[in-house]
Amino acid sequence: VKFNTAVLDVKAGKKSIIINEDDANEIGLELNERARLTVGGKSTVCITETTKTLVNQGTIAIYRDVAEALGIENGSSVDVAYEPSPKSVEFIRKKIIGDKLSANEINGIIGDLISNELSDLDIASFLFSVYYKGLDMEEIKNLTLAMLNSGEKLELNGFVVDKHSIGGVPGNKVSLLIIPTVASTDLYIPKTSSRAITSPSGTADTMSVLANVKFSLKEIKDIVEKTHGCIVWGGALNLAPADDMLIRVENPLRINPRGLMLASVMAKKLGVGAKIVALDMPVGRGTKVLDIADGEKLARDFVELGRSLGINVRAGLTYGGQPVGRAIGPALEAREAMAALINPESASMSLLSKSASLAGIILEASGISQQGQGYNVAMDILKSGKALLKMREIIEAQGGNPNIKPDDIPVGSYKHQVVAESDGYVTLVDNESIVQISRAAGTPSDKGAGIILYQKQGYKVKKGDVLFEIYAERSSRLSDAVNLASYSPPVLLEGMLLKSYPTE
Amino acid sequence: VKFNTAVLDVKAGKKSIIINEDDANEIGLELNERARLTVGGKSTVCITETTKTLVNQGTIAIYRDVAEALGIENGSSVDVAYEPSPKSVEFIRKKIIGDKLSANEINGIIGDLISNELSDLDIASFLFSVYYKGLDMEEIKNLTLAMLNSGEKLELNGFVVDKHSIGGVPGNKVSLLIIPTVASTDLYIPKTSSRAITSPSGTADTMSVLANVKFSLKEIKDIVEKTHGCIVWGGALNLAPADDMLIRVENPLRINPRGLMLASVMAKKLGVGAKIVALDMPVGRGTKVLDIADGEKLARDFVELGRSLGINVRAGLTYGGQPVGRAIGPALEAREAMAALINPESASMSLLSKSASLAGIILEASGISQQGQGYNVAMDILKSGKALLKMREIIEAQGGNPNIKPDDIPVGSYKHQVVAESDGYVTLVDNESIVQISRAAGTPSDKGAGIILYQKQGYKVKKGDVLFEIYAERSSRLSDAVNLASYSPPVLLEGMLLKSYPTE
Repeated sequence: VKFNTAVLDVKAGKKSIIINEDDANEIGLELNERARLTVGGKSTVCITETTKTLVNQGTIAIYRDVAEALGIENGSSVDVAYEPSPKSVEFIRKKIIGDKLSANEINGIIGDLISNELSDLDIASFLFSVYYKGLDMEEIKNLTLAMLNSGEKLELNGFVVDKHSIGGVPGNKVSLLIIPTVASTDLYIPKTSSRAITSPSGTADTMSVLANVKFSLKEIKDIVEKTHGCIVWGGALNLAPADDMLIRVENPLRINPRGLMLASVMAKKLGVGAKIVALDMPVGRGTKVLDIADGEKLARDFVELGRSLGINVRAGLTYGGQPVGRAIGPALEAREAMAALINPESASMSLLSKSASLAGIILEASGISQQGQGYNVAMDILKSGKALLKMREIIEAQGGNPNIKPDDIPVGSYKHQVVAESDGYVTLVDNESIVQISRAAGTPSDKGAGIILYQKQGYKVKKGDVLFEIYAERSSRLSDAVNLASYSPPVLLEGMLLKSYPTE
Repeated sequence: VKFNTAVLDVKAGKKSIIINEDDANEIGLELNERARLTVGGKSTVCITETTKTLVNQGTIAIYRDVAEALGIENGSSVDVAYEPSPKSVEFIRKKIIGDKLSANEINGIIGDLISNELSDLDIASFLFSVYYKGLDMEEIKNLTLAMLNSGEKLELNGFVVDKHSIGGVPGNKVSLLIIPTVASTDLYIPKTSSRAITSPSGTADTMSVLANVKFSLKEIKDIVEKTHGCIVWGGALNLAPADDMLIRVENPLRINPRGLMLASVMAKKLGVGAKIVALDMPVGRGTKVLDIADGEKLARDFVELGRSLGINVRAGLTYGGQPVGRAIGPALEAREAMAALINPESASMSLLSKSASLAGIILEASGISQQGQGYNVAMDILKSGKALLKMREIIEAQGGNPNIKPDDIPVGSYKHQVVAESDGYVTLVDNESIVQISRAAGTPSDKGAGIILYQKQGYKVKKGDVLFEIYAERSSRLSDAVNLASYSPPVLLEGMLLKSYPTE
């Protein structure tokens, strides 16, 4: 049935049509059912919303994204028809009851996902079924290939390596040291990274303080062929759009099914043509890997999957029990990373040695260094200032100021210091509390917000020493964060009461 | 921060605000994050959608449901603020990893659900966690009470009994015989039923052909105190709104977690004050109960839950392998039910005896009949014409025509008969195929659409005998249904090829 369209300029994160209730009844469409919109050769499936008065009979309202997908404008004529659930909804049901999916079924799910045929609830069903029923190695490989084939590829004329962190540790700004270290050699390292999801700052957020991070694949190719490296936002690319679409629903659900994580990481690494991948797997309280045994199992799965896909994966379990370095939050982390490149001797050892370890894994695997010498070679590159020069090249190639000094980077002007109320040793630095406080302070959207940790686990402190300092760009955010820190302390001293009861 | 409101008249099935992107950035709200709207003493939580041009800075657009919840109109001023996830999202996370929930936690989840604080994805998370991790009997009891307390109650001056089918069998119009049978005695049976979800016709759809089914609790009280029975749509009541809100998300997910099913049924039975409940549990291909063992387990759980809540539950496993009676679809089923009441001797035995069995369970449990005599007493009421008279009273009390004859009920004027292509016995009547074909023909929204089965399992047919007949209100729907029936035959004869390969 033909309708006129009224385009609503709303970015709804989902595709809907809004149709007059009487029209909906006439064409047999109900609330939340699928409707297919067709115009010319283009077609898309939307979820039905109904209205009494927003649009009259004969007109449907559609959101901006839908109009763009159909290439139509306000007032265009479109055909609207009831659309049954796509075939892949049945495949998802198979996984819900625990059946193994064939390559065709996985391709069907990813194909429908990419064509926007699946609703958010369908996608959630797929995510939960994989979370609870799992995927075997063959399913994961097929999912990886389906995700890879859903997107475009970066093709570089060089030997490509990559680094990936499976995340979960605040302050993990190691990519800003690793990329220039590796890029100082003959290797290419086109690092695509994410923005913060649950953390105070993703690598892309931190780098965005120093340079642009949003580029096309063509631009990245130019940057990497010139400098051997880049640190860009992966979300603007089209490397594995199916994965991005799954992640959009996965994040609010806060589940991270292992099979999808493996496929997601490897699809993007295949997409940039990486032959060697160093995996940073932080282990410990508040990370995604609970203990060493769990980490070893995950590492073995990554290595096996990589082998079946032609990628040499080297996984490093790293200590993730407290933040890396001292700074948490985009601008504060960018300051710390630049300071570490400028003066490695004064840098936090946790930052410097973790960066050299992971860079070293890549250098050994690629034959740039001898076995057992990767760490030392990487440390030499860092301490010689070569990594700093390379980082300046990369910042410049990405449109930033290559000569930026740490102090040039603006941070929040609202600050609050928390001091030790007694002498003692630091027994715990609580990642989760740090994340909560940083986010209350405004990270990642307020780039200047965050935390500087002055004391870490095992440090001896005296009464009155500053334990940590909170930064915010807005006073209301600062007081939220300070308030949160008072009842969820991120730095605990030996002998300190965690809580006293009764609390009043 | 204060905003003007523009009310969009859209029934979106979800609560959103649409805010200018610049405003969203300024107040730190991101796409899909929660926003709290407050005006006067009223407050509600919405999901954030962003726009560049639909609204200017300083104005938000909200949907009709949200405006009604806040009691505001176009142009009113509201306060908008970022809202963190409610506490119950953490409780849901506990269930996701398989922890047991306390009464307080369950009350927290149901409370937030009722206050519209949970997004559809939060609700989906709860549903999947219960589907995969289950609820123990204590959790189910607490959930039942939380659901009960979320709603209003029907208070009748009489001894209340009820009947419930856990569904899954097409053509299951037994309530239209059971209710008048039981209501012919001293018992009260206020039957609230659902509209079709996945089936061709819910009891409320079938009854809506004969009378109104949408009443308030007050009106139902009047009807039942006058006639001892009613057959109304439960969705218009407010007996357990939390349950309705879960079901709204459960239906598109097509999962039916057992613990929720138990709580959902019992909350509604408690809500009408039932002391005795007869449970119809169809078992077999295409039903919700796979086999007898599964049915017995579920029956035991219902009985145990009922006991802990003061309800005498009597569960009857019934044969659900093929439709009950011959008619499928609202109008066709209403015709068949009225014909069976008018002339029980000619009625389909599967319909008559199933109805008498379930009514008999109630009559025995309540002491109206002696043990072992319930079926006979119920059959006497049916055959004596008392049930017919009672049904006419109920129809009249619900605003229908008490003297309606089966042939007065309009059915679809587009018909197609499918005949046997050979002699043979009917080996299978496929519920699932019948449901698909009926829905293709237009049920449940086209009341006159559906199927009449002329042959059922075990019947001997001759070449040319009519196997079944499809009814539709629209020719396009009829051809869809006929087409579907040709490659997914609902009535299979011994020796008949299910499919031939290759298909071309």
